[in-house]
Amino acid sequence: MLCSLSSSIRQTVNRKMSFKFLENNYTKGSTEPEKKPGVARIFSFQLCPYAERVLLVASAKSFNFDLVNVDLANKPEWLFEKNKFGLVPVLELEDGNLLHESLIIADYIDEATDADHKLHPQNLFEKYRQKLFVQEFATAYPQFIAKLKSGSDDIDVTKEVENFIRFFESELSQRNTRFVGSNESPQMVDYMIWPFVERLPAVISLGTQIKNWEQHLSENAPLILKYMQAMKEDPAVKQNLFSPDTHIDFLLSVRERFRK
Amino acid sequence: MLCSLSSSIRQTVNRKMSFKFLENNYTKGSTEPEKKPGVARIFSFQLCPYAERVLLVASAKSFNFDLVNVDLANKPEWLFEKNKFGLVPVLELEDGNLLHESLIIADYIDEATDADHKLHPQNLFEKYRQKLFVQEFATAYPQFIAKLKSGSDDIDVTKEVENFIRFFESELSQRNTRFVGSNESPQMVDYMIWPFVERLPAVISLGTQIKNWEQHLSENAPLILKYMQAMKEDPAVKQNLFSPDTHIDFLLSVRERFRK
Repeated sequence: MLCSLSSSIRQTVNRKMSFKFLENNYTKGSTEPEKKPGVARIFSFQLCPYAERVLLVASAKSFNFDLVNVDLANKPEWLFEKNKFGLVPVLELEDGNLLHESLIIADYIDEATDADHKLHPQNLFEKYRQKLFVQEFATAYPQFIAKLKSGSDDIDVTKEVENFIRFFESELSQRNTRFVGSNESPQMVDYMIWPFVERLPAVISLGTQIKNWEQHLSENAPLILKYMQAMKEDPAVKQNLFSPDTHIDFLLSVRERFRK
Repeated sequence: MLCSLSSSIRQTVNRKMSFKFLENNYTKGSTEPEKKPGVARIFSFQLCPYAERVLLVASAKSFNFDLVNVDLANKPEWLFEKNKFGLVPVLELEDGNLLHESLIIADYIDEATDADHKLHPQNLFEKYRQKLFVQEFATAYPQFIAKLKSGSDDIDVTKEVENFIRFFESELSQRNTRFVGSNESPQMVDYMIWPFVERLPAVISLGTQIKNWEQHLSENAPLILKYMQAMKEDPAVKQNLFSPDTHIDFLLSVRERFRK
């Protein structure tokens, strides 16, 4: 099992990995950028799925903010003043008040902005059912990154991925709507799970023995593929999207870093 | 360390443990009780802190429900139809719709009832700051039950308990309010953390080398003791309260069960 994985990884590891767009991130030793008066800030890292949740909601709600990207591998010292755990995302409000945790920031932004376009459903039971689904989705999603960070070549998660695909496909088939939350447009639940759906091709490519993720999904989980296509048409998703190849390259670079 | 613990445990283990009030709980093989039309139900277990969260909010909001207590050691088969994980609390709405997870049910009940008396603060930032505190509290609270369930005599959690007491005392001193959430009456944050504060005497008595929890708190954490006194005057808390001795006896019975 290890060998076939290693070979599939070797195919991709030879691709030149360059993340030019990460080079200007604030890093260790940097000075904290000056805060513009009257504007909130979001501290983020471009390839963090939790930060992406917040950026999706901020985009969808036209929330006005300054973006401060940090280097998570060499965190600036002042990041720990924003969140003692040194994690992103962090939301810094106009008055300097701070919130962290993606689900909390996402709900805050939704509640604080544009009352006519709430991302949670109006129906109260449906709202809380969707919050439960986000938790259930997080539990079912293959715990891939932790395995990758172990630095081992053996990051086979085939069984986990197959269970997850079955779980999510069945959920989509029961709901029978264009998005998880509704037919019209993505709702909070969609933005909370999307960053992980976006990474599913990378997880399939790197962590399983399946060679072609698109073919595998079209044969085994056509509703997931359809959902991905629908989500990619959403302006907020488009604005924050990276390709499967970028996710693959980034995850490989994470593994390399943890190997050192 | 193990010896002194064992001896302190022996002092309490000889007390006759009887939980008459648990004897009528629905158990394996039982028939699900009939649902009264138009009334919600809460599936609970009297000594589960997560279920207590929900009962506190239901009491504080005068939420109308039928209580169904189950035997968690011998779960009725029909409990898994209410929640596939067989956990409590579960809220079953009038129309049969189901919600689980204590924080989700608590927020649902608060939002669904008595708009003039919301348990979350009106100030949006404060609301989400309190949600963060509930998470932080849960992380800081000694992971006591898991250790107890290991069945070992060595359940020393002195260091964890001391760190937790420092953390919570410092939080109360910064807030400088009668309750965590406000001066007037307990808010959502208070009801979410209370079940664990209520069990703190039991955790101190069973899991540390400290002989007298009340004296220890009055010397080292007077604000926690004051907070406990204030909370015990609240009608919702009064209605759902068990004594430190009951918690001690119950936790010992949990350990005995896991030893078998």
